[in-house]
Amino acid sequence: MSTEPRKILIVGGVAAGMKSASRLRRLDPKAQITVVERGIHLSYGACALPYVISEEIEDLDEVRQTANGTVRDEAFFSMVKDVEVLTRCEAVRIDREKQELEVHFLDDDRYQSMSYDVLVLATGSRPLVPPFPGRDLAGVCALKNMDDAASIAKLVEPGARAVIVGGGLIGLEMAEALGSRGMDVTLLEMQEQVLFGILDSDMAEHIHRVLRNAGIKLHLGEALQTISGQNDQVQKVTTTIGSYPADLVILALGAKPNIELAQEAGLNIGPSGAIAVNQQMQTSDPNIWAAGDCVESYHLLNHQPLHLPLGSTANKHGRIVADAICGRPAHFPGILGTLLVKVFGLNVGRTGLSPEKAAQSGFDPVSIFAPSPDRVHSMRGAKPILTRLTIDRESRKLLGAQIVGPGEVAKRIDVVATALSFGADIDQLAQVDLGYAPPFSAAMDPLHQAANALRNKLDGLADSLSPLKLKQRLDLGEDLLLLDVRSPAEHAEVRMAGATLLPLGKLRAKVAELPKDKLIVPFCKISLRGYEAVRILHAAGFEKVAYLEGGLLGWPYELERGAPEVPITN
Amino acid sequence: MSTEPRKILIVGGVAAGMKSASRLRRLDPKAQITVVERGIHLSYGACALPYVISEEIEDLDEVRQTANGTVRDEAFFSMVKDVEVLTRCEAVRIDREKQELEVHFLDDDRYQSMSYDVLVLATGSRPLVPPFPGRDLAGVCALKNMDDAASIAKLVEPGARAVIVGGGLIGLEMAEALGSRGMDVTLLEMQEQVLFGILDSDMAEHIHRVLRNAGIKLHLGEALQTISGQNDQVQKVTTTIGSYPADLVILALGAKPNIELAQEAGLNIGPSGAIAVNQQMQTSDPNIWAAGDCVESYHLLNHQPLHLPLGSTANKHGRIVADAICGRPAHFPGILGTLLVKVFGLNVGRTGLSPEKAAQSGFDPVSIFAPSPDRVHSMRGAKPILTRLTIDRESRKLLGAQIVGPGEVAKRIDVVATALSFGADIDQLAQVDLGYAPPFSAAMDPLHQAANALRNKLDGLADSLSPLKLKQRLDLGEDLLLLDVRSPAEHAEVRMAGATLLPLGKLRAKVAELPKDKLIVPFCKISLRGYEAVRILHAAGFEKVAYLEGGLLGWPYELERGAPEVPITN
Repeated sequence: MSTEPRKILIVGGVAAGMKSASRLRRLDPKAQITVVERGIHLSYGACALPYVISEEIEDLDEVRQTANGTVRDEAFFSMVKDVEVLTRCEAVRIDREKQELEVHFLDDDRYQSMSYDVLVLATGSRPLVPPFPGRDLAGVCALKNMDDAASIAKLVEPGARAVIVGGGLIGLEMAEALGSRGMDVTLLEMQEQVLFGILDSDMAEHIHRVLRNAGIKLHLGEALQTISGQNDQVQKVTTTIGSYPADLVILALGAKPNIELAQEAGLNIGPSGAIAVNQQMQTSDPNIWAAGDCVESYHLLNHQPLHLPLGSTANKHGRIVADAICGRPAHFPGILGTLLVKVFGLNVGRTGLSPEKAAQSGFDPVSIFAPSPDRVHSMRGAKPILTRLTIDRESRKLLGAQIVGPGEVAKRIDVVATALSFGADIDQLAQVDLGYAPPFSAAMDPLHQAANALRNKLDGLADSLSPLKLKQRLDLGEDLLLLDVRSPAEHAEVRMAGATLLPLGKLRAKVAELPKDKLIVPFCKISLRGYEAVRILHAAGFEKVAYLEGGLLGWPYELERGAPEVPITN
Repeated sequence: MSTEPRKILIVGGVAAGMKSASRLRRLDPKAQITVVERGIHLSYGACALPYVISEEIEDLDEVRQTANGTVRDEAFFSMVKDVEVLTRCEAVRIDREKQELEVHFLDDDRYQSMSYDVLVLATGSRPLVPPFPGRDLAGVCALKNMDDAASIAKLVEPGARAVIVGGGLIGLEMAEALGSRGMDVTLLEMQEQVLFGILDSDMAEHIHRVLRNAGIKLHLGEALQTISGQNDQVQKVTTTIGSYPADLVILALGAKPNIELAQEAGLNIGPSGAIAVNQQMQTSDPNIWAAGDCVESYHLLNHQPLHLPLGSTANKHGRIVADAICGRPAHFPGILGTLLVKVFGLNVGRTGLSPEKAAQSGFDPVSIFAPSPDRVHSMRGAKPILTRLTIDRESRKLLGAQIVGPGEVAKRIDVVATALSFGADIDQLAQVDLGYAPPFSAAMDPLHQAANALRNKLDGLADSLSPLKLKQRLDLGEDLLLLDVRSPAEHAEVRMAGATLLPLGKLRAKVAELPKDKLIVPFCKISLRGYEAVRILHAAGFEKVAYLEGGLLGWPYELERGAPEVPITN
């Protein structure tokens, strides 16, 4: 055992890097800890940058301040944490044999070799920018670091035209940010929905509606081809379908991990394209560890590798790397892919597997889609949320949730994420003693309502169709009876094309008039009455009955409004 | 096996009773289901009544409406649920031998015997009103049902004097409701804190401050003696200490279960004084079941019986009773005592065991108290929350949480409740993949921050003192060094009496001047710097160091404000 202090070198000074440096110092007061960072800003919250553009964060510099206003710069880390940080210093090569890192000081173009006992790679990720023409024009920006945010902020001008390429998380956040600043915003997405791979298409439709209502020009199913301009200044974005004038272009096509340093050193890269690590965050070289956005994660539910860079994960990694390096018990179990995003007053979240991903992973998924007010419905300020829960049929174990709505979404996502972490089944979820008070929840929490509806479906007590499944069957021209069990007044206001009105109160009396040979799909505003109708029809001997999950509130497709063409007789 | 439809009788038509009736109908379409209810209102949300008084619910009748505005009255249950409901019908005696229930129709003073195959007792609870003089005067009200709410609403008058007796959940909700309606509100509580038995005293101090800031006259440690008046109209409330003029008196002294019917029939009553049931909600008579506020619960963590009436629990009971009666697998596992309450913009929650209760239950509790902003701190709208987590030292398992603050409390309470349900330990909680986006959380969720601080404490990396423990030691005159490691400007604005200022940046340089023979207690605004100071002092060989958990933000006791008496030299 050497009594020399350990030399610990960390590459990258944003989230995981600085977190591991701080924790390492705490655990090993004598170690010599050095961080090399290519940029000039340390320990900033990259996920907060869209909110600098929207001015919900007043000053860009706040993203690298502590809660009490201290700027986390080199002096802060030196003075408070006793950690040396070298900025504008790029790591260029690892010599694993000699345990040396070659670095390049960018300002004076100087190269130097630094020896290490332990090396931590926290090299992060960078925006994915395919090599299309025009990507270097002025006014074409990606959003990754504080400099990017500063550049974009300078180009924000009310009435000017912004084109955002990509409808992922950052694309949506930037659409809100630039729209709220008065820009004329076009959002281009290659897929037929935003948040592709994150949300089911019928859930994403709710976001489409909100975007369009907010004045965002949403173009789906259009792939970027070229960006063009004049005098090096961007002017136009051309897709496979159209052409859009632009004063500012935001490229939000996703992120890729910075793995070059690791790859050139021969470290294992995982199937997701990020650096492979074990649960202690150790790479294939036992002296080299990795953390944060450059690292591959494992999904807790299907055990598949994936790359999902997030500040929350990076912070967890930072602590675990330090603990593991110092021989303390620590392991990172994996992730659930939990994501949240706010889009113009619509809160959106998902955790776990979508029904599609669950099926691909070998589960037999069963889902429900249920709307609820987020608190006691009569409370001022109560707002709806639409919850899709998915479970595995045989084990009844939770597989995931997707929730959208103007109401409180994040709480329910976090509850499901917690339940998923412990292998909860749907019956257990329905019994959790969640907090109840009228300003915060209803006596039956939206999750409990959804869980009970799903248990009824699973147990054969009430069959149902999701909006997407009903839409698909209608689009295929299936002859089914859409039964609107609301009141005539509600029907007159808004309704589904082709639906037959038969208010719930008259259903028992008129049940003999309904056909037994085709599927009856009762629905109401939220399908509480739709569900009651199923019960009444079952009792009357009807077998082919399935209510529309979520009712009209959850129906994201076309509806007819105003006076109906045919007079109502019921 | 009889082919006769089963006769199911349910006593009580509010939450658990109507829920079980609806579910029974669904599971047994042929059963003859009758509900007898002493009052006239069915299926209403009693917990929502304070919000009718505050006018956050516009109309009293909304508390018995479905989300789409349908009133849940006898006609609704008959038509939609095919359940017969008899209102103004009181159950007076059970003949278990004959399986008969004697009922009393209150309006025509008629008695009748009704036979049953299965009897469900959902008799609810009633306000606890000790037999003190004056309790029958006009203007003296308890709040339990819709009639109570209507009576109180008529007495609300800006400037008039309301005296609330009892600082529990309803007392606090009514203080806010009446205060927000412009009444002159006095709140009397026998204990030295509100929410006694629910929150630790230093947590409750934050509520005291908020109540006083809102103009509520809070009197702690005063027990009610008499209520007096003239011409049958209340005028004055007299306690062990003082006398308070009153135009309206709200008695909020807790609730007791309505067990008389069960008790007289010889059914087992549990140690908490409520009806004893097994996990299927079956009483000691296999033909009699019970659900809701009249029933005894078991605490999931210490397995002790307790009576905690809540609408959320009653709804769960209702479903389980019905499932169990119909032979479906169902059991109620128990409760965590999860509670939420809003008090003038302060959100308050707890779940699980307090440190004190945990110790009484045989655990070895270790707690942390940690403040955090509820989302990315630089976001507009970010507000602090103060989290106390408690775990068992050896097993490291979570035992409970108490959280107060203007920020998002309910989400974190629900996450802890979920984690508690699955026996989570603190290390698991710290790894849950909770949702992260700047409008909803920070990269390190407040629960993760608290969990990590608790792990540091548990692992001997940083000792700390709760506000209460420090206060107790100061009150005992212990000679310790309160070390304020904030800036001189922060110190000048607000500070703890007797604290020595030594900004964190100067600590390393001046460390030799500090005493090694007495406890040093560093603190700052939120004790992030206080915690760093512990680290620096440890590294410099100091052993007796413990930071103040929660810093000045979490310190609920006296602080000095404005220019200090002694000039600052540091």
